[in-house]
Amino acid sequence: MRRYKVAIIGGGPGGYVTAIRLQQYGIETVVFEKERLGGVCLNRGCIPTKSLVKVAELFSEIKNSDEFGISVGDVNLDYKKVWERKNHVVEKLVSGIEFMFNKRKIPLILKEVNKIKSIDGKYYISLDEDEFEFDYVIIATGSAPKELPSIKIDGKDVLSSKDILEITELPKSLVVVGGGVVGCEFASIFSQFGVKVDIVEFLPNLVFNEDLEISKRLAMSLKKAKIKIHLKTGMESYEKQGENLIVKLSNGKEIETEKILLSVGRKPVCNLTFDTELAKNNDFINIDDSFRTNLPNVFAIGDVTGKLMLAHTASKQGLIVADIINNHNTETFKLSYDNIPKCTFTNVEIGSVGLTEEKAKEKYSEILVGKFPFSANGKALGSGHTFGFVKVIADKETKKLVGVHIIGPHATELIAQCVVLLQTESTIEDVSQIVFAHPTLSETVMEAIEDLEKLAIHKL
Amino acid sequence: MRRYKVAIIGGGPGGYVTAIRLQQYGIETVVFEKERLGGVCLNRGCIPTKSLVKVAELFSEIKNSDEFGISVGDVNLDYKKVWERKNHVVEKLVSGIEFMFNKRKIPLILKEVNKIKSIDGKYYISLDEDEFEFDYVIIATGSAPKELPSIKIDGKDVLSSKDILEITELPKSLVVVGGGVVGCEFASIFSQFGVKVDIVEFLPNLVFNEDLEISKRLAMSLKKAKIKIHLKTGMESYEKQGENLIVKLSNGKEIETEKILLSVGRKPVCNLTFDTELAKNNDFINIDDSFRTNLPNVFAIGDVTGKLMLAHTASKQGLIVADIINNHNTETFKLSYDNIPKCTFTNVEIGSVGLTEEKAKEKYSEILVGKFPFSANGKALGSGHTFGFVKVIADKETKKLVGVHIIGPHATELIAQCVVLLQTESTIEDVSQIVFAHPTLSETVMEAIEDLEKLAIHKL
Repeated sequence: MRRYKVAIIGGGPGGYVTAIRLQQYGIETVVFEKERLGGVCLNRGCIPTKSLVKVAELFSEIKNSDEFGISVGDVNLDYKKVWERKNHVVEKLVSGIEFMFNKRKIPLILKEVNKIKSIDGKYYISLDEDEFEFDYVIIATGSAPKELPSIKIDGKDVLSSKDILEITELPKSLVVVGGGVVGCEFASIFSQFGVKVDIVEFLPNLVFNEDLEISKRLAMSLKKAKIKIHLKTGMESYEKQGENLIVKLSNGKEIETEKILLSVGRKPVCNLTFDTELAKNNDFINIDDSFRTNLPNVFAIGDVTGKLMLAHTASKQGLIVADIINNHNTETFKLSYDNIPKCTFTNVEIGSVGLTEEKAKEKYSEILVGKFPFSANGKALGSGHTFGFVKVIADKETKKLVGVHIIGPHATELIAQCVVLLQTESTIEDVSQIVFAHPTLSETVMEAIEDLEKLAIHKL
Repeated sequence: MRRYKVAIIGGGPGGYVTAIRLQQYGIETVVFEKERLGGVCLNRGCIPTKSLVKVAELFSEIKNSDEFGISVGDVNLDYKKVWERKNHVVEKLVSGIEFMFNKRKIPLILKEVNKIKSIDGKYYISLDEDEFEFDYVIIATGSAPKELPSIKIDGKDVLSSKDILEITELPKSLVVVGGGVVGCEFASIFSQFGVKVDIVEFLPNLVFNEDLEISKRLAMSLKKAKIKIHLKTGMESYEKQGENLIVKLSNGKEIETEKILLSVGRKPVCNLTFDTELAKNNDFINIDDSFRTNLPNVFAIGDVTGKLMLAHTASKQGLIVADIINNHNTETFKLSYDNIPKCTFTNVEIGSVGLTEEKAKEKYSEILVGKFPFSANGKALGSGHTFGFVKVIADKETKKLVGVHIIGPHATELIAQCVVLLQTESTIEDVSQIVFAHPTLSETVMEAIEDLEKLAIHKL
């Protein structure tokens, strides 16, 4: 019998981060993972896509380098090499975490767990000849791509976000079904690589969780990049025609394409059974504010809980659980989901935190809205990236900032300062005492906040 | 007689920003500027150099594009075009501010002011046939490049930071005398353009206001870029030899070069006389915490006051003065110079705020130091820029953050969140409640802060 205090099921950004923190606290922990450490995020999500994003950006910049006074000869993309580099980045990060686990002596069991028994307040897992005992279970089993009732992912014609990272040759054309964050990121990447891209989205807007104005501006930038966007449109079916596919849309139109990417969201994955049934809602595990499930000393974190399905949500939930276990079941603070940033790595990027204008209007009797365009920022002009704007929302009564939405250069980095501002409950006056460095893009955040009271310097 | 409430002498980032804010408050203001709005910053400082930095970065990236799977043919730089683009960026920004002044109806007098008279608590300027009267004076006359006792700037062989922006052809070689921020930035830019560069610095370290470790790492990165660095070395003299110059150093060595850039600091510029003498110290105008000079209702802001000579210091000082005037001489808050960020746009960049390790040790009985390298960050790896690290300093007793020093990709943007953390007096625990987006470079800030208590996840 191998005894641990904690068992973590799933080694993604929820599970592996929590395991390391528990080890740092000196708490004996075992991790069960059916594939490799890093989960979707490192192996087939955030990291590989951002590696492609970098190449897409550079490729675009090189094609425009003439305006900067740089001449180049023939510019060509060797996608096989781009793909290999992506794999190399993933391998480096995943093997880095494996190295950490080794050095920190965190036991890692590379097997799938299906059944967890409980006797007298302890939990047990049996795997082949090994038996494990522990006091706490943290479920961090993640999620997988959804399919549509009529359209199945086959990995050949119809690809998932995982499959599309495995192709080693660029298709000539791609229909992206689902215009959420994942769909828009792949559309943006492949379009920059020269692939003809269509996005089909059932809802009236792309990235529908974002502020409406941001979503509309994203559509504008994708259209500028020659991506065709079909809103309020479903994909009904497709059929093979020679080498290509004919995609039939709900509006009667047809698109001929080489590949289809199905990115219509993710579903929770959890094949665990306990002696008592784990309470779920739509397959997502029910948790309270401290990530406790209905079973004693069983926590769940990350995508499988369905709360803002982002890697950094999972990691933070796990770190809080580690604190709770370390503090003998005492909570330290409550995670505010409103203050969790969301990033979309399209060209141009989106970074946002807090309430959208639409939601702020529901919550507060009166709001202030401030905006500032990158085209009036010196650093943006100097670097040639001026598309986009910063939008800030404040409660009119308290003057507290309640939402920031950025579309533009480095929006995904610029949002960090806004997260700190929201988390520290900063008011417009508080921000007026902060000095933002010149010349930087972060000055756009300052001016958007000044604009809440019509005091932006570089705006009429 | 033209009557105003406020006269601002100097239309740089101190003066023009203050004028706009005063106009927003409905306070009648006139600005006197002897050249064009924007001052050194926009016309021959921050903005033109950052425009060159962008091209230098892109040029370097293109030369390494093979590792990303992008092949380019012959890569060439047309420096004349780079220079023209820089002028275009400057023109766009400066004319933008001129447009603002027009729209806001802020009178701008493009003449040099030398004498200000005072009678019965009012101030007067006479210029040709015009006479101006006002209650307040804000002096924002800026600074100019220093020379060395033995070396004069001639604009041909020995260039100032202003002159070097005017050359339209790249020299083959450049000796940069003075390894402060300006010297290092030009060294980095021109070296990336293929110019052979030497830096001669009298002090034992480059950018000597920065944390020692950061300064050493900068030297490492500049050396990697084949820049030769001569520390603890002065330039004694130079002589012409054919087309080139022979620079004689204090250590007896000689360097042959085409041009010399003298960047040994800046001196205050103020040719104003009042009826009562303006109190100065080493030519810098004396000010109190509210930027008041020894003369009633006369304020001074920006470089001419010698407090952290940065554009954003000048702007913020001016905005506070505008508030004081608007609030009938009542101060609202005290500017904390410690919380003003400093940016160096070398390749790689530096961003810093608060106390260096050396200064923190003097101020606090015990400190904590946390560090995190970009090489362990997923976004940095994905984008291929992993050189550098984040260093955080906290007071051990209160766990309050007191300094952050970043050298690495986008350090000048990453520093913004650190400014907010310092300004809000955040502790390590406060930061543990903040969620940083994944995958972003800002996670390095989080992990460096976690490392203060040895709790960084991706570090052993």
